[in-house]
Amino acid sequence: MRLVQKNDELTHIVAAWRAEGKIIGLVPTMGWFHQGHLSLMEMAGSKADKVVVSLFINPIQFGQGEDLSTYPYDLGRDMRLAEKTGVDLLFAPAVADIYPAGFQTCVSLKKLTQGLCGASRSGHFDGVATVVAKLFNLVQPHLAIFGEKDYQQLAVIRQMVKDLNFNLEIFGHPIVRESDGLAMSSRNSYLNKEERQHALCLYTSLQYAKEQVKKAGSKLPVATLTEEVRRIINATPTCAVDYVEIVDKETLLPSEYIEKNSLMALAVKINNRVRLIDNALLDPQEGALPDKK
Amino acid sequence: MRLVQKNDELTHIVAAWRAEGKIIGLVPTMGWFHQGHLSLMEMAGSKADKVVVSLFINPIQFGQGEDLSTYPYDLGRDMRLAEKTGVDLLFAPAVADIYPAGFQTCVSLKKLTQGLCGASRSGHFDGVATVVAKLFNLVQPHLAIFGEKDYQQLAVIRQMVKDLNFNLEIFGHPIVRESDGLAMSSRNSYLNKEERQHALCLYTSLQYAKEQVKKAGSKLPVATLTEEVRRIINATPTCAVDYVEIVDKETLLPSEYIEKNSLMALAVKINNRVRLIDNALLDPQEGALPDKK
Repeated sequence: MRLVQKNDELTHIVAAWRAEGKIIGLVPTMGWFHQGHLSLMEMAGSKADKVVVSLFINPIQFGQGEDLSTYPYDLGRDMRLAEKTGVDLLFAPAVADIYPAGFQTCVSLKKLTQGLCGASRSGHFDGVATVVAKLFNLVQPHLAIFGEKDYQQLAVIRQMVKDLNFNLEIFGHPIVRESDGLAMSSRNSYLNKEERQHALCLYTSLQYAKEQVKKAGSKLPVATLTEEVRRIINATPTCAVDYVEIVDKETLLPSEYIEKNSLMALAVKINNRVRLIDNALLDPQEGALPDKK
Repeated sequence: MRLVQKNDELTHIVAAWRAEGKIIGLVPTMGWFHQGHLSLMEMAGSKADKVVVSLFINPIQFGQGEDLSTYPYDLGRDMRLAEKTGVDLLFAPAVADIYPAGFQTCVSLKKLTQGLCGASRSGHFDGVATVVAKLFNLVQPHLAIFGEKDYQQLAVIRQMVKDLNFNLEIFGHPIVRESDGLAMSSRNSYLNKEERQHALCLYTSLQYAKEQVKKAGSKLPVATLTEEVRRIINATPTCAVDYVEIVDKETLLPSEYIEKNSLMALAVKINNRVRLIDNALLDPQEGALPDKK
């Protein structure tokens, strides 16, 4: 595996791969790899000849008071994990190479970013869309893979690709979970043992919602279900709801009633310090609980 | 020359050209070709194996009350002119193919768009940057050519290319003028005979400014010169200044004093109906007047 930190070196290598007819798959990440990331890399490896993973803690997608300064980072650790997973190139640029002096361009999406995390994290998806547009132009991949845990992010990227005519295919990878159901996240590393236990309320409340829908079907009012889930989460020690929403899985607009395209998305703050997200389709026809690894 | 109106057909053709190792040059236009456009196409032909010209009257770069509905358009006429000039492919998509239902992505630049036309035409450069980003992804050119008459547009595109890491080279083409000095523009077609005569004040006032700088050098205060040029234009029948500015040619920020990087840029409204722009470097070392064809 090759570690590349400069844009020019990257574009040189990927241009050569393209010229050889290699299919290039990209997995954009902020590092501190867990099995979720590694699954995306494996998926990329199954679809592409060359797997590029970017590792960049993107400052412009963090708001004031968010965890930019404490976000976990260990390049050596991540290099070993990526190499073991068969990654060909790890791109880990410095902030000054991605945002040199004078940088001023922003890619923004108007509708998909209004609700959910976009409402709590002003400017977050502008930062995501902008850095991903840059990565697409730098790596020029044939395909790119994003996790479904960041469901709104995946929807935003898909729409950006369509709107700006990026010539590549986007794949979502199902949420990868710990054995007890907690969705894997680099931010889980912020949790102490007690908080880790309480954090399970994200998963259990999604499970509860799916069971209720299975029982009551679409007769269940949206407001009733979201209110119940809010109560479960807020009743969990150290946990407070940021949002609990039932939305259409395509438009991300609030569902009027529960139907097969309804997605429950939630964000929870633990000890007002660690913010975790999770989501699941509520499809009454879909028997399975959110995918577990 | 091939006329292409669908995105898929375009990407198919340019991918084949790329695979054959052809260098692709793009000239984005809104059509109603004049010698200015044709010179850009000729320049593209001198640098590329395949010349793609896009013809798209981009609705999102027009503001309310601007001339979107009256903008001149004649595809047959433009096809003949482009073909004669050696263009390989004319891409003339419909609005619904460029902005399908659900379109919501915007590319914007924060600093370069604040002054000059950006100040008079709110949202104009968002529209320009967004459509050009799309064209770059659709055509995947090795180079693209823009006229220097739209000086701020050229600066915005150069910065966007750098900021978003588009893998292509941007060239500016000097302003092409009528024999009496009027900068060529599709909007000149709006002028009646009398207005056409008055419109010459853009050129003559730039000439005047260059002469004053040549005489007085950098001792000439910026405010004095811009005030004199405003007076010349506003004293011309049917003409009214939109802006007269002296700015740094790189940052487009107002110059504090006149020096070799100073550019005079102006916009004039004729009969409050036709808005024309022009610009010239004021470089006291640079003897020549703005380039004439």
